[in-house]
Amino acid sequence: MKLEQYGKRLSSPYLRKAMKIHSDVRKFMSDFLKNERDFVEIPPVIISAITDPLNHPTTKSQVQVYGYTYELTKSMIFHKQIAMHALDKIFSFSPNIRLEPTERKKTGRHLIEFTQIDVEQKNASREDVMNLAEDLVIYTIKKLLEKDSDILKSVGRDLKIPTKPFKRIAYAEALKNYGEDFETKLSKEAKEPFWLIDIEITEREFYDREDPTRPGILLDMDLIYPEGFGEASSGGEREYELDQIYKRIAKKGQTPEQFKWYIEFVKKFGLIPSAGFGIGIERFVRFVMGAKDVKDVTLFPKAPGEYYPI
Amino acid sequence: MKLEQYGKRLSSPYLRKAMKIHSDVRKFMSDFLKNERDFVEIPPVIISAITDPLNHPTTKSQVQVYGYTYELTKSMIFHKQIAMHALDKIFSFSPNIRLEPTERKKTGRHLIEFTQIDVEQKNASREDVMNLAEDLVIYTIKKLLEKDSDILKSVGRDLKIPTKPFKRIAYAEALKNYGEDFETKLSKEAKEPFWLIDIEITEREFYDREDPTRPGILLDMDLIYPEGFGEASSGGEREYELDQIYKRIAKKGQTPEQFKWYIEFVKKFGLIPSAGFGIGIERFVRFVMGAKDVKDVTLFPKAPGEYYPI
Repeated sequence: MKLEQYGKRLSSPYLRKAMKIHSDVRKFMSDFLKNERDFVEIPPVIISAITDPLNHPTTKSQVQVYGYTYELTKSMIFHKQIAMHALDKIFSFSPNIRLEPTERKKTGRHLIEFTQIDVEQKNASREDVMNLAEDLVIYTIKKLLEKDSDILKSVGRDLKIPTKPFKRIAYAEALKNYGEDFETKLSKEAKEPFWLIDIEITEREFYDREDPTRPGILLDMDLIYPEGFGEASSGGEREYELDQIYKRIAKKGQTPEQFKWYIEFVKKFGLIPSAGFGIGIERFVRFVMGAKDVKDVTLFPKAPGEYYPI
Repeated sequence: MKLEQYGKRLSSPYLRKAMKIHSDVRKFMSDFLKNERDFVEIPPVIISAITDPLNHPTTKSQVQVYGYTYELTKSMIFHKQIAMHALDKIFSFSPNIRLEPTERKKTGRHLIEFTQIDVEQKNASREDVMNLAEDLVIYTIKKLLEKDSDILKSVGRDLKIPTKPFKRIAYAEALKNYGEDFETKLSKEAKEPFWLIDIEITEREFYDREDPTRPGILLDMDLIYPEGFGEASSGGEREYELDQIYKRIAKKGQTPEQFKWYIEFVKKFGLIPSAGFGIGIERFVRFVMGAKDVKDVTLFPKAPGEYYPI
């Protein structure tokens, strides 16, 4: 993006409105988790020897630190699991760096630098955290409608409070009825946020837990926005048994050496069963504002493949 | 740090208490700025073509992004100034990466990854933001004493609400009376937080504003904790005129090319006068808990010079 564009967009009234919504989204999500549900906010991790491998291709972003190589955080999944040794219910506003393929620069949904609110709860089931996520989304939208109705009206956005429980659609069923592109089609058709559940083991990373009663099916879920806004959130129960972790890593064609310190930690201290999810803040703001592109609601946006001077 | 230590410290009751204080510090600071003073929270910037050069030596932490070199944020000073084109009162919980010299690993005050709450206000004077920072600190401590008195009692911490206005000590006076090591000595002696003001131009970066009526003296300030806890915050009015920025860069022995895109932005769009400050969250938690070392109150601490597996 050119410096000219960057400078001019800063004084646009639309961006100013989006930033107020952004600030309030952080406020209400934090208020809900802290005041209503007793979650503890932990600081984000930016550089680490371990990070989420992600299921889709991104370029590694590495940094040299006193002669050692660290990666920039793609998600805090491993740190969330490890933090369960200290705390029962946690969340973080976690900045992620994901160097997505350049062809994703015009999807309207991809930034290489964004923040997700990353939530994890000890001994929780998938049902527990789906319930929690629904309450979090409903609380936040209700509060936004109370506080920011002027802004939403001025941008012509008729935002509705979603109905609980959100609809659940099984992955296999969605694939059968809509083909490979089911997520986009279902999102366009939908009038309310909905869940995609029971995702196939080949489609996800090793840390999403396999259903012990249905091999090959994961105890995970994606939250999808209606009106074509696409994915809101990913989450699920987590693998916590070393045998299962080894099996799942092998199944992805990965090696335990790629996750050396994580594996060492599990060997020495074990993992505690947990479930959780992450909700991208910028995409949430895009949905709330009804914006065409996530870049339009972001103060300092960085799209895949481009250079930004600021 | 060894994996063994890392794992064991996670289940320590002290760390759990510190994390609850940490979470509440973020909550009350955010509540104060958003609910009481109408500030807008902006997302942090993690990678950028421009970042704070800092006045003390740190190793550059760089990352390759689609063939371009970005730096990891050392502070959001330039982005805060630029954001004044969009918003009047802003703050961010901004993670900073500062690869400090290895000899700082045992100061008890240095982490290479930490978060500061970074605040900036358009057309504000130094007095305005000192007033704001005092109110922010007092509000947060008051609320912590209400909500977390059990935790503070259990760790033997007798935390007092500071008296407003905080004492002000001029840099030249401090240097004359206490010598080079004035900050440490004054901090040990003090019973309440205090300000160091009017810092000499050679001691700070170019963006802190020179007093037009007292050449060589800056309109900036440091907030210092009592009881030997050292520096809490840095801040001041900012340079916003291009001539003055050039002059100040030259005075530091730096070149405009080092800040190319920042200078280009100022040429094209100008800067708006502003003042602000940053308060390190981990150091604030250390002060609140009365902890010996900032690492003791941090979930995933990283000290200078060391390798961390997690």
